[in-house]
This record gives sequence, structure tokens and C-alpha cells, in this order.
Amino acid sequence: MGRFSFFSEIVTGLLERTPFGAPEGTDQTLDALCHALLSGRGEISGKRVAQDILSRYKGLDAGERLAFFRLMAQGMDVDTKAVIRAAEAYGKAPTGASYAGLADAAEPPRQEFLRRLNQAPGATLELVRMRLDLLGVLHDHPELAPLDLDFIHLFRSWFNRGFLVLRRIDWHTPANILEKIIAYEAVHAINDWSDLQRRLLPEDRRCFAFFHPAMLEEPLIFVEVALCKGIPGSVQSLLAETRTPLPLAQADTAVFYSISNCQEGLRGISFGNSLIKQVVEELRQELPHLDSFVTLSPIPGLMRHLASQEGEAPRAIARAAKAGDRKRLEAMGPQIRLAAADYLVNAKRGAAPLDPVARFHLGNGALIHRVHAGADISDNGIRQSAGAMVSYLYDLARVEANHEGFATANRVVISKEIKTLLQTGAAQGKQT
Amino acid sequence: MGRFSFFSEIVTGLLERTPFGAPEGTDQTLDALCHALLSGRGEISGKRVAQDILSRYKGLDAGERLAFFRLMAQGMDVDTKAVIRAAEAYGKAPTGASYAGLADAAEPPRQEFLRRLNQAPGATLELVRMRLDLLGVLHDHPELAPLDLDFIHLFRSWFNRGFLVLRRIDWHTPANILEKIIAYEAVHAINDWSDLQRRLLPEDRRCFAFFHPAMLEEPLIFVEVALCKGIPGSVQSLLAETRTPLPLAQADTAVFYSISNCQEGLRGISFGNSLIKQVVEELRQELPHLDSFVTLSPIPGLMRHLASQEGEAPRAIARAAKAGDRKRLEAMGPQIRLAAADYLVNAKRGAAPLDPVARFHLGNGALIHRVHAGADISDNGIRQSAGAMVSYLYDLARVEANHEGFATANRVVISKEIKTLLQTGAAQGKQT
Amino acid sequence: MGRFSFFSEIVTGLLERTPFGAPEGTDQTLDALCHALLSGRGEISGKRVAQDILSRYKGLDAGERLAFFRLMAQGMDVDTKAVIRAAEAYGKAPTGASYAGLADAAEPPRQEFLRRLNQAPGATLELVRMRLDLLGVLHDHPELAPLDLDFIHLFRSWFNRGFLVLRRIDWHTPANILEKIIAYEAVHAINDWSDLQRRLLPEDRRCFAFFHPAMLEEPLIFVEVALCKGIPGSVQSLLAETRTPLPLAQADTAVFYSISNCQEGLRGISFGNSLIKQVVEELRQELPHLDSFVTLSPIPGLMRHLASQEGEAPRAIARAAKAGDRKRLEAMGPQIRLAAADYLVNAKRGAAPLDPVARFHLGNGALIHRVHAGADISDNGIRQSAGAMVSYLYDLARVEANHEGFATANRVVISKEIKTLLQTGAAQGKQT
Amino acid sequence: MGRFSFFSEIVTGLLERTPFGAPEGTDQTLDALCHALLSGRGEISGKRVAQDILSRYKGLDAGERLAFFRLMAQGMDVDTKAVIRAAEAYGKAPTGASYAGLADAAEPPRQEFLRRLNQAPGATLELVRMRLDLLGVLHDHPELAPLDLDFIHLFRSWFNRGFLVLRRIDWHTPANILEKIIAYEAVHAINDWSDLQRRLLPEDRRCFAFFHPAMLEEPLIFVEVALCKGIPGSVQSLLAETRTPLPLAQADTAVFYSISNCQEGLRGISFGNSLIKQVVEELRQELPHLDSFVTLSPIPGLMRHLASQEGEAPRAIARAAKAGDRKRLEAMGPQIRLAAADYLVNAKRGAAPLDPVARFHLGNGALIHRVHAGADISDNGIRQSAGAMVSYLYDLARVEANHEGFATANRVVISKEIKTLLQTGAAQGKQT
Repeated sequence: MGRFSFFSEIVTGLLERTPFGAPEGTDQTLDALCHALLSGRGEISGKRVAQDILSRYKGLDAGERLAFFRLMAQGMDVDTKAVIRAAEAYGKAPTGASYAGLADAAEPPRQEFLRRLNQAPGATLELVRMRLDLLGVLHDHPELAPLDLDFIHLFRSWFNRGFLVLRRIDWHTPANILEKIIAYEAVHAINDWSDLQRRLLPEDRRCFAFFHPAMLEEPLIFVEVALCKGIPGSVQSLLAETRTPLPLAQADTAVFYSISNCQEGLRGISFGNSLIKQVVEELRQELPHLDSFVTLSPIPGLMRHLASQEGEAPRAIARAAKAGDRKRLEAMGPQIRLAAADYLVNAKRGAAPLDPVARFHLGNGALIHRVHAGADISDNGIRQSAGAMVSYLYDLARVEANHEGFATANRVVISKEIKTLLQTGAAQGKQT
Repeated sequence: MGRFSFFSEIVTGLLERTPFGAPEGTDQTLDALCHALLSGRGEISGKRVAQDILSRYKGLDAGERLAFFRLMAQGMDVDTKAVIRAAEAYGKAPTGASYAGLADAAEPPRQEFLRRLNQAPGATLELVRMRLDLLGVLHDHPELAPLDLDFIHLFRSWFNRGFLVLRRIDWHTPANILEKIIAYEAVHAINDWSDLQRRLLPEDRRCFAFFHPAMLEEPLIFVEVALCKGIPGSVQSLLAETRTPLPLAQADTAVFYSISNCQEGLRGISFGNSLIKQVVEELRQELPHLDSFVTLSPIPGLMRHLASQEGEAPRAIARAAKAGDRKRLEAMGPQIRLAAADYLVNAKRGAAPLDPVARFHLGNGALIHRVHAGADISDNGIRQSAGAMVSYLYDLARVEANHEGFATANRVVISKEIKTLLQTGAAQGKQT
Repeated sequence: MGRFSFFSEIVTGLLERTPFGAPEGTDQTLDALCHALLSGRGEISGKRVAQDILSRYKGLDAGERLAFFRLMAQGMDVDTKAVIRAAEAYGKAPTGASYAGLADAAEPPRQEFLRRLNQAPGATLELVRMRLDLLGVLHDHPELAPLDLDFIHLFRSWFNRGFLVLRRIDWHTPANILEKIIAYEAVHAINDWSDLQRRLLPEDRRCFAFFHPAMLEEPLIFVEVALCKGIPGSVQSLLAETRTPLPLAQADTAVFYSISNCQEGLRGISFGNSLIKQVVEELRQELPHLDSFVTLSPIPGLMRHLASQEGEAPRAIARAAKAGDRKRLEAMGPQIRLAAADYLVNAKRGAAPLDPVARFHLGNGALIHRVHAGADISDNGIRQSAGAMVSYLYDLARVEANHEGFATANRVVISKEIKTLLQTGAAQGKQT
Repeated sequence: MGRFSFFSEIVTGLLERTPFGAPEGTDQTLDALCHALLSGRGEISGKRVAQDILSRYKGLDAGERLAFFRLMAQGMDVDTKAVIRAAEAYGKAPTGASYAGLADAAEPPRQEFLRRLNQAPGATLELVRMRLDLLGVLHDHPELAPLDLDFIHLFRSWFNRGFLVLRRIDWHTPANILEKIIAYEAVHAINDWSDLQRRLLPEDRRCFAFFHPAMLEEPLIFVEVALCKGIPGSVQSLLAETRTPLPLAQADTAVFYSISNCQEGLRGISFGNSLIKQVVEELRQELPHLDSFVTLSPIPGLMRHLASQEGEAPRAIARAAKAGDRKRLEAMGPQIRLAAADYLVNAKRGAAPLDPVARFHLGNGALIHRVHAGADISDNGIRQSAGAMVSYLYDLARVEANHEGFATANRVVISKEIKTLLQTGAAQGKQT
């Protein structure tokens, strides 16, 4: 241990944790180890046993992992009779003791088991990976669903927003982190280090990620931002290899053009909304003259939806997209924009929008601001949305009200521009 | 040469969090805010509402705080009937859905409420302080015990050993942390900065503390260590203003002479055992030639115990201690050592040792190694133990077995020296 | 959010340098070591030899140090004949070779010797201390003056302003640095850690220091600043134990109330002007609403000057000050202010102001803004200036012109207030 | 300014320096600015003027730069007559004053001018670049040689080994630094980020660089190290894309296989020897079981030398190399090894080895340990040395004596293996 930079040492402490090696030559079976960890009366040997179990786990084959999951799902389940007894007791006489009894009975032992596993250095990441394994077998083994719910419960507590840290990712960031940004980018693939550099180095580009102190070398989620003059109509122009960075003083709009979750094992624990809000705060502080915060988002479900529609326009769009006929698509810009707006506003799954990205941003309190044709002419963009993209607007003054309306009544807020577009389209539709 | 560094920024991120100011001019009542936080359908406005509630809370008077606690204890309690229904349903058909129902019913809403409060920047420390307030009224308001149990439950999860970071405290540590070490020292008071310097600066002294990443400016627990040649027989000589530091090469023994919990609001969440074990590891790595790890511990219950004893020796000791007659006590060294050993080994509360410090170290797997007369001749030392102290030995090869024996069978391990002392004493007792 | 972090390691590298231990058992004499260092043909063994010499030096007694200085002063002096030959050669044929010859001849070997000493880790601080020793004997040994000039020459180059780093000193600063701030405060002594805390912790107080990367644990110079509403008339009220900090929003004036050089061994290398200017920039960036940057400075030469004056007022002031009669001094406020202003403006040493603090600030481009009576009523304040202090104003728009006028023509700029004070005084003087 | 991690802030301070923008709208000519900087009586306006000059300089075209260099070379040269007068005065009466006069006269004003330029934030790097420009015109303008000598003189002082910091470069290093490692690698080109990763990430690889605190984002020199079992006979196998890293416990040899200077503008200021020695220390501390420290070095002059030789073997080697006939070269391994050893030991420039890499390592105190045929079969390796490489051995016990012998008497130390090789070769030569 060095002696300087007190607080950075704290982080060093977080990082210096020994990686998992082989278990320390114990002869005990995994079952026996699990039993020992769970029955242990305190902290004493927990750390070592936890480490041994996690090391063992990494060496298991698929069948053995399933058995391990079953041990937790069934062998460490709640005893419903005990719960009923304890609930009755607490109902009759609500004291500290009876409450302790209920809490004890109602929490399955596997929760405490997982918490104790987490004592081992580096365990948090291992547990996230363990749940990823669990997700892989969950479909075929629905009896493991309760175990998965407990993972979610614990991860929600551990990855509480209050524990997360926002960091800017830039060209001064260590290569081992950047490497993961390349790997985890899920929206517009980063081809290589030069591509990454184009997204990080120019002064009109930003990238931010959330980290958790117990997993410092693993970003949880990150967002890429372009600072622009107005809302750009194409992601290809945003990412062009040759372009002149915009002087910061001219930027008035922050465009969130990619947001990627990094840890599949944390599926169901959502960070995106917090990230966007904190990045907006961060940017407003750094660049007070920014006045719009919008996305440039894919419309992943558009083509699937159009394929199910009747009418001339949808079919024509679908044909052109299928043929990859960019020229023809370009000519159909107005129809595509109308079809996209209609899809986003009117296509539903139950009462909620059909499009998953729409659900995410509208749920965050954004509104549907503008649709763009020819905005993503990559193969994937043509395939999923005939090249259309959409900008959701985060209007800070209205974001909470929007969110409230969406959350309670599935109310979707749209801009005047979108309203006009839809009305004109409807009028034309009637005319024809 | 360290290698991690991007990461020190992460800590900066943890520290840069804005402190609590006034709530942002909301007109809502605290109740309405609490309701809003709890009913909120996600992360959206949680952070701001949480911040407002915590700010409001700080301004409450005693009566209002009580009302706030009651709101949580009663207004956010479990519905036992719902628990019973859900437990029955899960008992009959254990599916993901029925398990989710049970988990939902069995967890009181206040747990989620507290987790959401924790989203606010700096909230963790505020919640620790809130529980300290709760502890202050718990005795008179036993109906709040379930709330306290939920605090403990959440803190155990958040302050999981896997999230803690060990840091050395020394003369390069920032003053704001050192100031807290002075304030929190609970065993041998630190009189001023010079006294502190004597415990941190010499090369034969060490101090280590645990920190949590969400409360970086607040140590959780710390231990002070003296590196010695052999086991010292007096804490006053350890802390003497004028003494020559021992060259490190001559040290063979690490003496843990003070261990202090810092956060009263975390009462019931134990860190001491983990701390001692990790410090032992740390010291062994730095100084491989150390061969003993012992404490120099107070015996806080000795005089109270002797006062209840019959027999000449106990009474004589008690009289001399009461009179503060250090000379006489010095002369009675052998009797005091015998009385102390007898007390530590034989005085019980139920099946466990009566002395709380003994319970702590024996529970950690230490053994009773040696008793010292005239080892703490401060007023407090005379008053509580007639100047006697005890060294518990952490013998790494035996610490798990000792712990196991103590945890399962209250077995207390003692050294040969103590055994001989007690046998000789017994023989003499019989003779007279 | 900072972005640089790899680099904090670099600083760790600067700090991790091994301190000086005993020389590595070499049998060579110091003279032989010096010869070896100087004759060494490169970097090869320089570091070790340099380390040995510096270790040896620390063990020398006064006489041996004098001999060592003489070795450098006389044994490593320039050969003036060689200089003349080389200058003639270069004068005749100014080529690279002849210039190299001149440069070689004109630089005394001791400069290279000192540069080579500086290769040892930690050497820079040792050389600063060595010069301090030299300063101690310089008066009695004027033949060492050339050596001292070479120290100054090298220090000017090494401590070039471009290499210095400004750091804020506050309550998060490591104790080992704060301890030095207490020790080095030269204007208004810091009594203890509580006093220090009062100067660092309140939000209306600031402290800044310059550091050099090769001496990271040693501040070079620091300034203490109070943020005030208007210019305070008393340093005692500034430093009062009980006072309510001013909310930052109300502050309009930054008062530099103490500036202390830390390294006596760097005498003659001036940092004060750079420090003040950089702190002004720093404060303006943090607090754009500040509109005045003034000092609250002692007038160390006032009483000495008055003692040499004739006239009733000076004598009366001198008597009261000598008697420590604070009441009487209070009554004489107007006369004291007049006397102080007169002294500052009119008392000269040659063409420059007699008062050394005045020379410093006027040389920096400040102007004489206001004089205060009863502003420092400590014993020292009464003794040196009958309690009077002065505020110099750093008016950024005029600071360069002021400096230029002072540097070229000893022009002293004063405020209207001072002008009026002096005119009124003159008028009154004539009247009486 | 943040408040945490005191020392890392110091570095932040070093990094936060504003980059050069346009000069602040001054109308003064560059000449006038230079005059102002030089005549300035102190620190007052130096920083701003220096900044303006450096900004202007960056905008100059080739002719203007030449004029600027001439201004320094001729307009700020020493006055030899003044030097002679001052030297005579000091020779007659060696006092502080006369010495000051000599020092003043003998130092050309351009040195002070360059020191003052260095006050501007970021200036050090600008001055290094300025000298690079100077080097570019020096050959055609020998009258600028004195100016170049002054650059060297100042850089030697500023880049004193005592001010340099060694840092490990690894996969946690920020991308902006790694990018420069790729760019500056001068021996075995790094093709892309994957290639870089192969040299940094495996546990049996190391890379270290020197940095200067005033140029933290610019490495000065770096060395790449492979930890091996024995001395590898081929750099291609060292750098192979697919290879299994050696477990650290098996490594016994550290192989320095590439050392690259980064700053052409610092030509003539040598860092390589210090770097190698400090890296050896570093590695010995981390891995005490390493017992050999060798290089795997190119023999850049071998083919040029052989081309000038008569005899069958040299010609055959030269023909095969020229034809790039790797098969034939492989068959000629023994002859190539003999020719390489003979070249390294016997080919001279004056009394020193002809090969520049040999001069570097032998000058550092290494010895010629082993020659390898077929060790660098890249096109470049074939072209310059017919694929041969050499290992110099840094035998710590002998390195100073070796250095001494080389420095004073051009004595070249060789291993037994080389001796035997040469003797056998000589014997065979005689036979034939």
C-alpha cells in the first residue's frame, strides 16, 4: 500500500482485489461448501468459503450449473407454512420479535446465501455472470424463475442509483475500458479504434458511462452524444470519417445517438433513464448555451409492423427496403416519415406503444419530436426501418409531467411537427 | 508503481456529490412526498423527491420525526393477510408469478421506500443518521422495532463486506478524515493532534480503517496497531509521549491496542472481525517477519464482576481500585492477574463469556493468551478493571477452529500460560 | 468531472522516491566522490555517487561543510584565463565549436557538479537545504558569494514558473502538508490546528500554495485569503475565533491577508508575484462576482521610521505604542493613518519606498489603496506599526502599467482616498 | 478546482494548463514582444508575453522562423569583449560582484530569453518543438549552432534525471498515451492496437517510459521488455500473434527488445541509460527470481560493413541478404554469427565501435553476450543485418567497471561465448 492520494487509494483498494484463482485445495464438495456458507454463524470464514464456491462454480459444466441453480431454487426456498405461521403471529401481535420471525421466514435462504457469496473479493461481477448463465437456461427451466427474481431483488439493492458513478469516457480513458466500449456498443457498431477515436476525441463529441464501485473495470451502460447545431437528419453524417468538428460555441443541441447496456446479467435493472438525466445535467453545467436534448433513435419495429399492414404505401416501402433500393427509398421520403410517425404514435401492444425504443424514451418522459427519412442507410437501418429514425425530445420543463401521463395513462406526447405530419397524412389519405 | 488511475476519477465522482441544501421550494407536504416516492413507477423523479424528503427530514423536530418513523412503521407495514394468501398460493403452485406475489407481499413497502430514499446523492450517510435518531427513541417506542429491523436488513446488504475498502490512515491522510479518527476513538481517547501524530507517524505504528464507497469521508471502523518486540505489558508505555520508535526489523509482534466503531447508526452491522483479519493479511504481506498478532484489550466488566464476588482477594482489589490506590494495586499484581483470568474464563452470561470484549475476540476465533496487571493505570482503567488488561491471540492456524468451537459450543480456548495461572491459583486457593 | 488520471500515478512516482539513507558503505573520501561525480563521463554511475555525496554531506559538521563549500567555490571555479582565450576565439570566429569552447570555459564546473548532484532521488530538496547552510556562513565568508550566485542561477532555472503548480490548501489536504503550513506561516502565527481550521474550513476562506514537482511534500509559498464584503479594517476580526462565515454570494472582495515564503533556502527566487496573480485568476473563475482584490498588509517599518522623525504627532504615537497603550492609540487613529500614509508614500531608501512590503506589492503593480488604524492590535502589530495596516489594491486593468512605472521610474500609485488623506494632513500641518 | 486527492490534483494542475490559442490581440511585432520579454524587469508580465511569442511562433513560415532563430543567435549573443573585461576583473578580484559580472557577461541573453519563454503554460513542449525546427535548418545554417548549444544546455538542466518519472505502460494506460507509443516505436513497428495489446497485456510483457512533469502527456523514451526463460533467439517469435504467455514463475530473463526515443527535439539529451537501469531495479524488486537482464538488439550497420569487406563469406552473406533469400541465409547461420561478432568487436570508428547500438549499450556498461542468426527475418532485419541480432548483457556486478573501461579506454567486454566464437572463426579462417 502506498501512502498518498488518500481517496484514489480507496479506489485502488477496490481494484487490487485478487482475481479468482483455484479454490484453496479444499476437499469439501460444493454442496458441503454451500451448506457451510449458509450455516456459518457470522463473518468469520465466509469470505474464504465464498471464494471457494465461486471458484468451483466457474469450473462447472452446464449440467452441474443447473444442479447448482436447483440447489438454490429448491433447497433454499421459503417454507410457505412457516411464512403463514409467522404472518399470523405478527398479525396478532406486531412486535419486534414477531416481525423478525416473519422477515426471517419470508426471505428465502438463498438471498442470504447470495449476499454471503458477495463477500468474496470481486464477487459482484461473478454473480452478475452467474445470473447471465441462469438467464440462458431460464426458458427451459421455469422452475428457476424464483431464483431469478431473487437475483433481480438483490441487484436492485446493490446497484441502487445512489451507488453508481458517472464517468466521462474519452481519449484519456484507459484502453481496457475503451476496449469494452467497443465490444458493448449495441446500436451503431464501432468498427475499430479509429472509429472509436472519431466518437471520443473531437470536441463536439461526448461519451458517458455508469460504473459501480465494486465492478470498476466494467461499465454498466453508456451513452454517446454529438453536440450539433440543430438536429441532424442522418446518423451516417454524424459518424462520417471525414467531417469537421463543430466549434463548441456554435452547438445548441445535444444528440444522444447511441445508448448501450453492457451487462446482460443485469437485465431488468434499468439504468438508462438515470444516465440520460444525469448526462443532461452534466452537459447543461458544462455548456449552458445548449437548449435542446434530443435523441437520434432507431425505430426497430417499423418494417415488421409495415409488413403486417395493408395499403399501397406500406407495401411499396417494404418492397423497396427489402430490395435495398436506396434510391427508391430516398424518393419515398415523405411516405416513410408519415408511416414512421403513424407507427410510433398509433401502433400499440396493449395500451403501450409497440416500439420498444419508443416505450423506453416515452417512459422516461421524452416526447416524439421529429421523424427522419434516410437517416440510417446502413444495411441494418434499411432492413429494420427503411432508413427512418426518430428524435425524442427531453424537454426538461415537461419531462416529469410527460412521464406521469405515460406511466399512469399511457399518454404519448408528440410535437406540433408530428401532429401536423399526421393530420396532413390523414387528410391526404382521405383524399385518395 | 500502481497501475490504476482512471479509477481515481471514479472516486472523485463519488465525492463530488452535492450536499443537501434546502428542498427545492416544493409546497407538497412530507406525507405527500413520501407517497409520491413510494408510488412512483420507476426511477424518473425519484432522485429529486428523495432529496426533498431527506432535506425535510433534517428540519423536523423530535415529535415530527417520531411521526415520520410511525408513518414508515405502520403506514408502510406488511399486510399479513396478503402474505398469507400469497404464501398459500406459492405453496400450491410454485411459479415465478406466485413467487413474485409472495416476495411482493412479504416485503414491507418501507424497504422499497428506504431504497428509493437512497437514490439521492449522499443519501446513504443520511439514512445512517436517520437510524441513529430511531435508535434514540426505540426504547420508548417498541412499536418501531420492525422499522429498525428493516434498517438493519438494508444496511447489511449495502454494507456487505464485499463493498468495503480497507485504507491505511497515516500522517498523509487528509485532515478531515483524521479529525474523525480523533472524534471516534472509543478506547484510549486521543487528546489532540500531537497525540494523534504519535499514533500515526512513527514507523512502528499503523492504523487502518474500513470505508464504504458511498460514504467516502466517513470511516466505519478503525484499528490502531503497535509493532513491538514481544507483547507489551502496558498501554501507557505504548502511548508514551517520549519513546523511541522500534526499528521495523526488530518488530515481531503486531499489537491491536484499540478498535473503534465510528457509526453508531450502523449498530448491529459488525465490521470488526473482517477488519482484524484483513489487517493481519495486510501486515503479513508488508512485514513477513511478524509472528504474533495479539490485542492489548480492556476488560470492561472486571470490577463490576468482582464487586459481586465474595472472598478476600476480590474485595481487597475492589477497595484499592475504588480508592485509586495505584501503589497498592501494583503490589497486588498476582492476585489481579488471577482474578482477571478467572473472570474471563469462568464468568458467564448464559453459556457465553460475561465480558463483551472477550465475546467479540473469542467469537472471532482468538484465544485468551495473557493477562497483564498494571497495564492501564488511567483513571478509567483503574475503575473498570483495576488496571488489568488482556491479550487475545490471533493464531492464524487455529482461528477458524477456535471460532467454530466458540460459535457452536461456546468453547473458550486459552493459552498454557493462562491454564497454569488458573491451576496455580486454584491450588493456592485450596491451600488457604 | 476531471479527466486526467493515469497522471496521478506519475505523481505517485514522484513521491515514492526513496529517502536518503546511509551511503552505501563506500570507503571513498568525500573529495574522491566529488571528483568522481564531476569527472564521470555520463549518467552511468552519477545517481549513486550523487546519493553518496548528499548522504555524506548530511553528516558533516560545520567546519567540514565550510570545507565542502570551499571545494566548490574555489576548486570548481572558472578559469578566467581560459575564459579570455575562449572569448577571443569566439570573437574571432564565431562557430559552434568556438561557442562550445566559450560556454564550457565560462561555466564554473560547480554548476555541472550541482546538476549532477540533483540526479539523486530527492536531491532537489537536499540542495535547497544545502544552500540554506551556505546562507548561514555567507556573511562571514564572502569568498563563497560566487557559489551562492550559482545556486541562485540553477534554482531560477529549475524553479521556473512554468514548472510550478498551484494547489488549494484546505481541510481535505493531508496532515503532513498542513503541518508545514502551520510551521511556515510568517505573518500572523497559526497557534494550533483549531486556528488552522478556522483559516481553511469556512467557505469564505481560501489558501493556495505553489509546489514544485520534485518537492511535492514541501510548499514553496502560500497565501491566505478572506472573502469579504468590503475591505475589513482589522486582522483580529478576520481571525476571530467566533465569527459567522460570510455567504459566498455576498462576498465582493478578496483580501490577501498573509503571504509566506516557506523555503529559506530559495531566498532570492521570488514566487510571490506569480502566486498572487494566479490566485486572482483562480478566484475570478470560481467567483466571477468578486470585484476587488486587496491585501491587508503589515507596515513593518513604520515605528522605526517614526522614531527617527521629529514633530509632535510621531512622538506621541511612538510613546503610546511603546507603552502598549491601546486606548490612547485608538484615540489617535486619524494621526496614525496620516503618519502611515506619509511613511508609505514619502519615506524612501534611494528612490524606492523604504517599507519592504510596500516595495513588494508596488513592484507587483499594486497601488496604495487605504490605511487602517487599529487594524493589528497584537503585541507585534503595536510594536511595529502602532496597530496600523495598509491595503494594497490589485486593479487588474492597471497592474501592468503600475508595475512598469514602478520598475522604470519608481512611480508609486495611490488611491484618491490616500491622496485626500495626505492633502488634508498637509493642510492641517500648515495650519498648525 | 476539486478538493480531493491532494497530490493527484497537483498533477491535474500540471495538465490543466491552457493550450495555446491565438495571441491576445496584441499589435506589437514579434521583435517588440521579444524585446519586451527580455527587458522585463521580473515576473510581472512575462507569462503573457511569453505566451504571445510562442503563439506567434507557431504561425511563422519557414523564412520567418529562420529570422526568429537569427534574432536569438545573433541579436542575443554574448558580447565577447564584455566577457573578456569581466573575466579580467574577476581574475584580479574574485568577489561576489565581479563573479556576478562575469556570469552575466558570459551567458548569452538568449538563455534568459528561453527561460522566460518557458514561463508560459505548456511552453516546455513548445520549446522542444522549436528546437526540432531548428535542427531542421541547422545543417544549412551553421551560424545557428550556438543557439542549438544553448537549447541543449537548458534542456539538460530542465530534463535532469532527478526530475524524470518512470511509469509502467500497460493496458490500463490512457489511450492518448498508448497512441503515442504506437507512433514513436522506432525499432519493431507496432502495426495496430492488437499488436500493441500483445506487447502490453500478457503477464510476461512489460513496457516502461520516462515522463517529465511539465510534459505529462508526452513520453520521452520507452523500453519494451519480454520476460522469458533463457534468451530468445528471434524477435519474430517474441512478437508472434499466437503464443502462450510464460507463467511469471518460470521467467528467469528480462529481454529489452526495443528502446525508442520519442522526442526528436531532445536529441543529444540522453535518457536511455537511466531508463534501462531504473527498469532493471524495478523488475528486480517485482520479480526477485530474474537473473539475467539482456537486450535483443539490432545490428544496424552490419550489412553496410560487410559490403565494404572482401572475402568469400561477407560477399555470400551480402548477396543472399540482398536477394532476400531467407533459406540460404538460414543455411549460412554460423558464418553470419561469426561475421556479426567480428563486426561488433573489431569494426571501429576511431577507437570506438562502429555500430551505434553497440556504442550505446557498451557505453552503458553492458557487454556483448551472444549473437543470433535468423533473429530478425523482417525485410528490414534482412536488409540491415542479414537477419542477425545481438544480446547485450547488463551484468549488474560489472556494469560500472565495464562502463569505466569503455569510457576511458574504449575497452569492449565480451562473453566467453563470443570469445570462443571469434577464436574458432579465426582458426578456421587460418585453416582456409
